[in-house]
Amino acid sequence: MISFASDNYAPAHPKVLEKLQQVNIGHVPAYGADQYTKTAIELIQNSLGAPKAEVFFVFNGTGANVVSISNVVNSWNSIICAETAHINVDEGGAPEKIMGTKLVDLKTEDGKLTPELIAPIFVRMGDQHTSQPNLISITQSTEMGTVYTTDEIKALADFAHQHQAFLHVDGARISNAAVSLNKKFDEIITKTNVDFLSLGGTKNGLLGAEAVVILNSNLAKNTPWIRKSSMQLASKHRYLAAQFLAFFEEDLWMQNASHANKMASKLRSSIENNPKITLTQKTQANAVFAILDPKDIEKLQKEFHFYVWNSNTNEVRWMCSWDTEPAAVESFASAINSL
Amino acid sequence: MISFASDNYAPAHPKVLEKLQQVNIGHVPAYGADQYTKTAIELIQNSLGAPKAEVFFVFNGTGANVVSISNVVNSWNSIICAETAHINVDEGGAPEKIMGTKLVDLKTEDGKLTPELIAPIFVRMGDQHTSQPNLISITQSTEMGTVYTTDEIKALADFAHQHQAFLHVDGARISNAAVSLNKKFDEIITKTNVDFLSLGGTKNGLLGAEAVVILNSNLAKNTPWIRKSSMQLASKHRYLAAQFLAFFEEDLWMQNASHANKMASKLRSSIENNPKITLTQKTQANAVFAILDPKDIEKLQKEFHFYVWNSNTNEVRWMCSWDTEPAAVESFASAINSL
Amino acid sequence: MISFASDNYAPAHPKVLEKLQQVNIGHVPAYGADQYTKTAIELIQNSLGAPKAEVFFVFNGTGANVVSISNVVNSWNSIICAETAHINVDEGGAPEKIMGTKLVDLKTEDGKLTPELIAPIFVRMGDQHTSQPNLISITQSTEMGTVYTTDEIKALADFAHQHQAFLHVDGARISNAAVSLNKKFDEIITKTNVDFLSLGGTKNGLLGAEAVVILNSNLAKNTPWIRKSSMQLASKHRYLAAQFLAFFEEDLWMQNASHANKMASKLRSSIENNPKITLTQKTQANAVFAILDPKDIEKLQKEFHFYVWNSNTNEVRWMCSWDTEPAAVESFASAINSL
Amino acid sequence: MISFASDNYAPAHPKVLEKLQQVNIGHVPAYGADQYTKTAIELIQNSLGAPKAEVFFVFNGTGANVVSISNVVNSWNSIICAETAHINVDEGGAPEKIMGTKLVDLKTEDGKLTPELIAPIFVRMGDQHTSQPNLISITQSTEMGTVYTTDEIKALADFAHQHQAFLHVDGARISNAAVSLNKKFDEIITKTNVDFLSLGGTKNGLLGAEAVVILNSNLAKNTPWIRKSSMQLASKHRYLAAQFLAFFEEDLWMQNASHANKMASKLRSSIENNPKITLTQKTQANAVFAILDPKDIEKLQKEFHFYVWNSNTNEVRWMCSWDTEPAAVESFASAINSL
Repeated sequence: MISFASDNYAPAHPKVLEKLQQVNIGHVPAYGADQYTKTAIELIQNSLGAPKAEVFFVFNGTGANVVSISNVVNSWNSIICAETAHINVDEGGAPEKIMGTKLVDLKTEDGKLTPELIAPIFVRMGDQHTSQPNLISITQSTEMGTVYTTDEIKALADFAHQHQAFLHVDGARISNAAVSLNKKFDEIITKTNVDFLSLGGTKNGLLGAEAVVILNSNLAKNTPWIRKSSMQLASKHRYLAAQFLAFFEEDLWMQNASHANKMASKLRSSIENNPKITLTQKTQANAVFAILDPKDIEKLQKEFHFYVWNSNTNEVRWMCSWDTEPAAVESFASAINSL
Repeated sequence: MISFASDNYAPAHPKVLEKLQQVNIGHVPAYGADQYTKTAIELIQNSLGAPKAEVFFVFNGTGANVVSISNVVNSWNSIICAETAHINVDEGGAPEKIMGTKLVDLKTEDGKLTPELIAPIFVRMGDQHTSQPNLISITQSTEMGTVYTTDEIKALADFAHQHQAFLHVDGARISNAAVSLNKKFDEIITKTNVDFLSLGGTKNGLLGAEAVVILNSNLAKNTPWIRKSSMQLASKHRYLAAQFLAFFEEDLWMQNASHANKMASKLRSSIENNPKITLTQKTQANAVFAILDPKDIEKLQKEFHFYVWNSNTNEVRWMCSWDTEPAAVESFASAINSL
Repeated sequence: MISFASDNYAPAHPKVLEKLQQVNIGHVPAYGADQYTKTAIELIQNSLGAPKAEVFFVFNGTGANVVSISNVVNSWNSIICAETAHINVDEGGAPEKIMGTKLVDLKTEDGKLTPELIAPIFVRMGDQHTSQPNLISITQSTEMGTVYTTDEIKALADFAHQHQAFLHVDGARISNAAVSLNKKFDEIITKTNVDFLSLGGTKNGLLGAEAVVILNSNLAKNTPWIRKSSMQLASKHRYLAAQFLAFFEEDLWMQNASHANKMASKLRSSIENNPKITLTQKTQANAVFAILDPKDIEKLQKEFHFYVWNSNTNEVRWMCSWDTEPAAVESFASAINSL
Repeated sequence: MISFASDNYAPAHPKVLEKLQQVNIGHVPAYGADQYTKTAIELIQNSLGAPKAEVFFVFNGTGANVVSISNVVNSWNSIICAETAHINVDEGGAPEKIMGTKLVDLKTEDGKLTPELIAPIFVRMGDQHTSQPNLISITQSTEMGTVYTTDEIKALADFAHQHQAFLHVDGARISNAAVSLNKKFDEIITKTNVDFLSLGGTKNGLLGAEAVVILNSNLAKNTPWIRKSSMQLASKHRYLAAQFLAFFEEDLWMQNASHANKMASKLRSSIENNPKITLTQKTQANAVFAILDPKDIEKLQKEFHFYVWNSNTNEVRWMCSWDTEPAAVESFASAINSL
């Protein structure tokens, strides 16, 4: 069955498995004290143009987000995010459970926050009766398949810093955003003054590995304990590091994301003139969102795997990944256009 | 200075202090094993027409809410409440900190939830990726000074129970609601199938005492440990119980709330024809909400103590309490009308 | 029934109720912004000779301990305490629940920690795999009725500070210790370099009020939010403050504790030559610990109320309080000696 | 450098990487809804002779322990374990942080708990003032390299169940224990009435994968949410499952553990007559513990990698793993014997 369900349904890129094989020799120190980890960290620092950034590998995206945020957010703080943010609706309440912190979620049109949307939250600063917002978390690319421009990120970072708050980027699909913007990570993260990045790998061709990147190393002094007590420290740590070696050594991140984005773009352009479907979001990364007649959804799902995003509005999400074949897109578009 | 700031600014009713004096004799068991506690519990059970309800005294309203809710809500559940709910914006994030649970807050016109507003939240039941809603928390009277009818409460309880969820009433001002509805607690709580009640005392003439009431005693088997580990178990417990003896022995709760509501009503009727102010909520309990010109707010605050509720809209809140004097209301209304 | 069960069984001192009456006039700001609170804080600062100490009133001893400790202890730290410490065995697990922190408890002979006992815990500093100890919590007087000398406290404070850790004193019975040492609070707390004090009132004649004292005000910047989100912020705050006004205005703390200690001493001296009982601890404050034949315990408990402290060893605890009458002690001693 | 530091320093067995390669084809559902996961679960159920056991794959050992225990332990409960238990001293305080629960740790001679050691903890049952023990956690093989007999486990399970408590086995090295006892998992877990098993894989030749096994499926109804909110749910779940396919399809677990145990045995027998070292524990699994002169430790560590287990007593730990070569053992033993 052809699947447009999720980039998590895709396998790992063969080069990632090759790299696992390469590092699978002999004894090396556990818990990140090995040479592979050291090299992978350097590759990430280079990619970000941030040689002093602190990097910590973790198991999954929720882990990356919570370990990032925990460095500066106390239980009496609050975290500002979009209503559709993964940390808000798709992490099983882990942020609240692990940090004990309130999430203040804001409705958006396109999954993107702006300083204007956020400003009204900063009204009771210094008031002991209410959670004090001190971190803004955005997702890049967003859960709605849209992408923040670098100016938009910088504006959010500036706003945050003017309010003694921090900016966190959930970069589960940061590669797709970078490719979409035709920029590298240093331009979209470091130069925009982001404080914390959850650098995603799994959705873009790894088996399962994410990285917490702390741009200001002064904020990282407790991170080893935060990661460990959040159950995100791998013992045979080389196998997380190796995935990032494959990711960065030959710009695999870029090739993978580039392909996924192209496939989404191809899908969109093949169906956008179809009057039976309403495209609900811009296709700036690797997702296409559309509203269909429920009967049409049902018909399509007999042949293709994808999710209904919003069962109230019959909005569906079609995801492309590093391995989506052009023929699969054509076949799917054709099915859609035959409805 | 005359104050319409908060019912928490008011002193305790003299009868409450008299009762403290009466119980202040000799040694009695600590932690609730005394006779005064037993009697106070019985008075509450009688008032609710619920002889099997379990009652636990606690220190404050946040404690009552969290201890109530903790009996059935796990960290992977979520709690549905109004955006303006005290548990959402005025408890310093205690619910998230103590329970690790997500709050899903809904915008309302008047601080009141309805099944229609809530229904869309119950869409991903059984989905391991998202917090599972299992408790609806309403405030009676609401933070906006409005009051749920018994039919409205019953509809919410029925809705909750149809969805394997529970209904909690934050009754910080439950007396004001009862008086407003001209009903007793059994009618507005027990007969409407409420599961948990935070029975408020402090805002209605006590020094500081609230009660957790668990209507279905099967849900109370862990409550002693929940209360203790939530730091809400008083050692010299008789002094919490005594306050409720005063509250219920001669219907002090009713007299106090009745007076407060009348004063709010008096204030409203004295100013409702004033074209310079916009009353924003019904006055069904002891609060009046209005929008004024910011300069007028400033002028008034030189002579009278009250809070700006919403600094974005210049909405103010005027609270009356058990001891608000008619002359004070007249003096305040006159100042408003002279603006 | 005459009770030697607990100082929590005793009533409040009449002067405390008088003070409640005195402050029960008119509207005052809630949540600690009132004049009574300001004055009570100054009295405590004066008593400690620490004009810059930060003081926060809370409801109970567990609250005082947790709010104190939370200022510096993270979930990945650990707290060192005696195995018999109240925070370890009598707070229902609140420290672990509220802070998520490990308690490392050490066996002691007499409830007292020493640098020698503690030193072996500081062995894996900097190791991300294990909780990092950063606070030592002692109880003064101890749960075993013994009292630390000022030299002993200073040695623990010095040890803590040499190890980048803090010293917290659970002073639920700090008055009894001060009286025992014939010193004032400045000498036993401030001059010994204690960092955090839970200043107890309830067990020594108040209705229910404790104070968190933070000697170094730099450590107190988050305390308002910690107290609020730990559900320990009283709305009608004047009634907590008033109790401390009574406590300190005329040295009520000293009179009450002095009496309780004398009664314990009287009890001990009346029975210490009795060969049928083994006194297990020094009587330095208001408690007497003894091992009796279980049949004798049973006999005594028919007439007098007290607790078996350790059911494995048949050790009992007899507590005296501010209101214990000499005749009651005589009557009890006589019953013991008649066994 | 030859390493006897940790079984976590070893690489993955080649067959595990082969299996990753085999499953790395095409799209499959994420989060455990794939066929590989289904098969791996069945293999584990078969291995345990427990077709109704619920199995959940997680990332690491701490995750397995916390997700297991969280099914029945509330924050007001306590967990009984050995002082040397991994959950007590090597998980960075994760159990306390994630569950908010107290750990009661007991000193042991050999890392093994007994009903006699545990019994005194069950003394204040029903007392709201103290954490209520309801789970015993043992490690098999223990952190000290010793192994519980099946009778010993059964006695602990019986004791737990008689006290309305549960038995959890931290089986990070369960394979080494099984091989040592010459029994399979059904005999040492299912037939001994264990309630929860953390089934270890990583230390025995996997890259990084553990399984939570819940023998009584009634206790597993919340586990999906517990796992997710504890950040232990893998998205590309097939790569955890695949590791267990390799582990169980051809008894790789047994071959690997058998080799590791033999190497430890070989090391021990080569040095046990050396008068300069004191062997401190039985060698029943894959660890050898010994006390050496600190100067000798230093000398050895120049050539071989291993850890000082207890810096106060100069006790060291030497671990063997699935890939430890006999020649390495001989070389190490020779170095020891030449000291």
